[in-house]
Amino acid sequence: MDLAAPYSELVERLRGIETLGSIGSLLGWDEQVNLPPGAAGQRARQQAAFAEVTHAAASARRLGELIAVLSDGSLEPGQRVVVAEARRDYERAVRLPADFVREKAAQESRGYHAWARARAEDDFQGYAPVLERNIELVRREAAYLGQENAAYDYMLDRHDPGLTAVTVDRLFGELKRDLVPLVREISASPIRARPGVLRGFPVEGQRAFLREVIERIGFDFGRGRIDVSLHPFCSGSGDDVRMTTRFRVDEPLDSLFSSVHETGHGLYEQGLPSSHRGTALGLHAGMAMHESQSRIWENQVGRSRGFWKCFGPRLRSLFPDQMQGVGSDELHLAVNEVSPTLIRVDADEVTYNLHIILRFEIEKRLFSRDLEPRDLPSAWREASRELLGLVPPNDRDGVLQDVHWSGGAFGYFPSYCLGNMIAAQLWERVCSLRPDIEEDFARGEFGWLLGWLRENVHRHGRRHDALTLVRMATGSELSPQPLIRYLRARYGALYLR
Amino acid sequence: MDLAAPYSELVERLRGIETLGSIGSLLGWDEQVNLPPGAAGQRARQQAAFAEVTHAAASARRLGELIAVLSDGSLEPGQRVVVAEARRDYERAVRLPADFVREKAAQESRGYHAWARARAEDDFQGYAPVLERNIELVRREAAYLGQENAAYDYMLDRHDPGLTAVTVDRLFGELKRDLVPLVREISASPIRARPGVLRGFPVEGQRAFLREVIERIGFDFGRGRIDVSLHPFCSGSGDDVRMTTRFRVDEPLDSLFSSVHETGHGLYEQGLPSSHRGTALGLHAGMAMHESQSRIWENQVGRSRGFWKCFGPRLRSLFPDQMQGVGSDELHLAVNEVSPTLIRVDADEVTYNLHIILRFEIEKRLFSRDLEPRDLPSAWREASRELLGLVPPNDRDGVLQDVHWSGGAFGYFPSYCLGNMIAAQLWERVCSLRPDIEEDFARGEFGWLLGWLRENVHRHGRRHDALTLVRMATGSELSPQPLIRYLRARYGALYLR
Repeated sequence: MDLAAPYSELVERLRGIETLGSIGSLLGWDEQVNLPPGAAGQRARQQAAFAEVTHAAASARRLGELIAVLSDGSLEPGQRVVVAEARRDYERAVRLPADFVREKAAQESRGYHAWARARAEDDFQGYAPVLERNIELVRREAAYLGQENAAYDYMLDRHDPGLTAVTVDRLFGELKRDLVPLVREISASPIRARPGVLRGFPVEGQRAFLREVIERIGFDFGRGRIDVSLHPFCSGSGDDVRMTTRFRVDEPLDSLFSSVHETGHGLYEQGLPSSHRGTALGLHAGMAMHESQSRIWENQVGRSRGFWKCFGPRLRSLFPDQMQGVGSDELHLAVNEVSPTLIRVDADEVTYNLHIILRFEIEKRLFSRDLEPRDLPSAWREASRELLGLVPPNDRDGVLQDVHWSGGAFGYFPSYCLGNMIAAQLWERVCSLRPDIEEDFARGEFGWLLGWLRENVHRHGRRHDALTLVRMATGSELSPQPLIRYLRARYGALYLR
Repeated sequence: MDLAAPYSELVERLRGIETLGSIGSLLGWDEQVNLPPGAAGQRARQQAAFAEVTHAAASARRLGELIAVLSDGSLEPGQRVVVAEARRDYERAVRLPADFVREKAAQESRGYHAWARARAEDDFQGYAPVLERNIELVRREAAYLGQENAAYDYMLDRHDPGLTAVTVDRLFGELKRDLVPLVREISASPIRARPGVLRGFPVEGQRAFLREVIERIGFDFGRGRIDVSLHPFCSGSGDDVRMTTRFRVDEPLDSLFSSVHETGHGLYEQGLPSSHRGTALGLHAGMAMHESQSRIWENQVGRSRGFWKCFGPRLRSLFPDQMQGVGSDELHLAVNEVSPTLIRVDADEVTYNLHIILRFEIEKRLFSRDLEPRDLPSAWREASRELLGLVPPNDRDGVLQDVHWSGGAFGYFPSYCLGNMIAAQLWERVCSLRPDIEEDFARGEFGWLLGWLRENVHRHGRRHDALTLVRMATGSELSPQPLIRYLRARYGALYLR
């Protein structure tokens, strides 16, 4: 049977769905960046109307017929990937009852507001029933998809196709074993960045500086933009990638590294093959891989000596008064400050991973029914003491600090730390191929690195899962050891002299 | 038969269609304000996908059934208006064949590019076939809607329900008779504004100034915003009105009056009854009425002595150097400069109307087949000499200056001039009710005027057509005489002393 016609019809439909999705994404971006305060209700109605339209397209009977025909036929490997991913999305669209989808959306919104209230009032127990309900909804969703006995794996797989709790457990166990002692050593070091060494950087100057940086590392402003929002993020895709940042006059590095982080996401989106838009071959390989792309630019590149040899002088020329008396070693220490904190989003590159391990271990216990939501606060305090050596004085700075669970986003946290591991392993490979790469950076040249990432990661789209892509790009299975070696080398040199 | 249930179902569906329309409008706004240059193709695909979705909702069989049931039943007057408007939209959605709609959209895009090229190369004859085709498409569209013998009236009615060429002809004939001599008198006056009296106004200061003005006259920034685009416009609706402006360092009044003009549109949208959103009762009463709202704020208010008693001192305090040596009479003359120009969008408040009359007379002849598109350049030159006393040296500054016809938007121009007439007639009524209204303005108080417009125009939505609304608000039929009296009073005092 000739499958060329049904295959192109499938691709055409997938492109249409992707186009609708991109409109939804623009609504989301606009909500964070532009929405007048009084228009929240109007935007919610737009989002709801839009979800209905998108769901209708994603569950169209004809789509199912095409997938059925193509699943039985003989296709090229790339086409098989496209059909398999289309089937996965289609089954999810048709197997989840409309009532369930509506209930979940309503609960997501209720959950967000319950979390915001609980956090403001430091009242966990009023919020615990919301978490119970959210876990219940995840279990039901997994059951609709035939995975009633593997709800947590189902959620991991939603964010990172193919990922299981067993794999994460092994990787995080090994990382924890080696990372906890390193953090202890650094914490005991007398060497410390001088607090508040960078102060009084006017927003306009910061904006000009980071635009230069972003453009220099390779972001194409002809196909994207950067704006301001409360929390930085990257959305959009293809020719219209939209990043955001925020500015704080007394924390110029916060804005810079947030922006470079989002630029890493943006470079990945701009590097996906546009000829395959709408299909799995034009889609990123999951959130862990996405996070690796943001982290490698933020950390391995952005906190390196080479990077600052290039951009340090520019910072000094834009802000001569503010930089007066800040030597380059002192600047480097500020860029690479390590200090355990209670709050994940304020964490440095080293301890950040421990925050994620903590959340993963708790999520596992919630889904194995080893831990009840109402007992979360004490479990959190205990884990925080063990991993970070810090005990939160209240739930606001403990279990209530993150928004994710309020909307049912379990299994998402691991991708942050997996992204760090992948970034370090890719970076180790890059350094073995081009040992003097920081000299590129010092000259303001970032094209070799970007080209290597384009070739080894971006151009593959979702043809392979993240673990396979890592193996192909580096010649080794994903392991936490490159991350440990990288952290020990960079931070040992600074703090354990 | 109880019609409460089908009526609410109809309203629910109309709201859904309106919500989809508001997403399309956001896509359009974003395209003008934010779109990266490389994303034009992506946005075109989004717009096309979106048009399909919206058309499906607007032509749903169930909608037709509801309209049929409700059209035969006994309803309140307001409900009858809602059903009649819904029927009008529905019939248009189902009677235009999908092929025709696609062809029209494609021709619109082709037409735009052909116009842009023709204008750049000053080549009318290469463009004439596009206009022939566009006129042909309008005739076909009118025929699908059963109005094959009244294609131009069909187009007028599209923009302003109930309007006919006979009515416009009568109004414009009377206006022309009295306005041409007034323009001749002013042109012969030795009094002239000093050219370039306002120069070197930095953008940031202009931005702050016009934000103050816009807020003071009553725009609610909690339910809207203003941004920058190449051509100023107002889009969005309800709680999310989006206006744009542009800044020119040496033409601060251009930015100010553009913004006040768009604010007039925005105030109308913000004043429509939100409880009726999506139905005719929550929709503006046509483009002429919309234009009257922008013009009354831009001209009757914004160019008045009272307005400048309030904002003149503020302008002087924000720009002391630039305003040095500019007396208040000189400023008032700059604000009210009159000088015939070839280009409509550069025209002053007085001569602007003649530009519209010229276009209306030509459109009428095109549709009565009294004029062939290929003969447009000479017809334009002749009409321009007669009405403006100016002959364009080329077609670029003549018949090729406007984009409207390239996209098939015939019958739109009249609403600009009708808007001026309506604004003047409303204003005459306002002044008879509150003779000292400029003293309100001088104190920075604009609430009485806005309240009167809300009460007499905005709150009615589309319950009545524009001509009826004018009669209700002013006690008289629409006439050009209030506009003539207003122009003669304001400009006579300045130029014919």
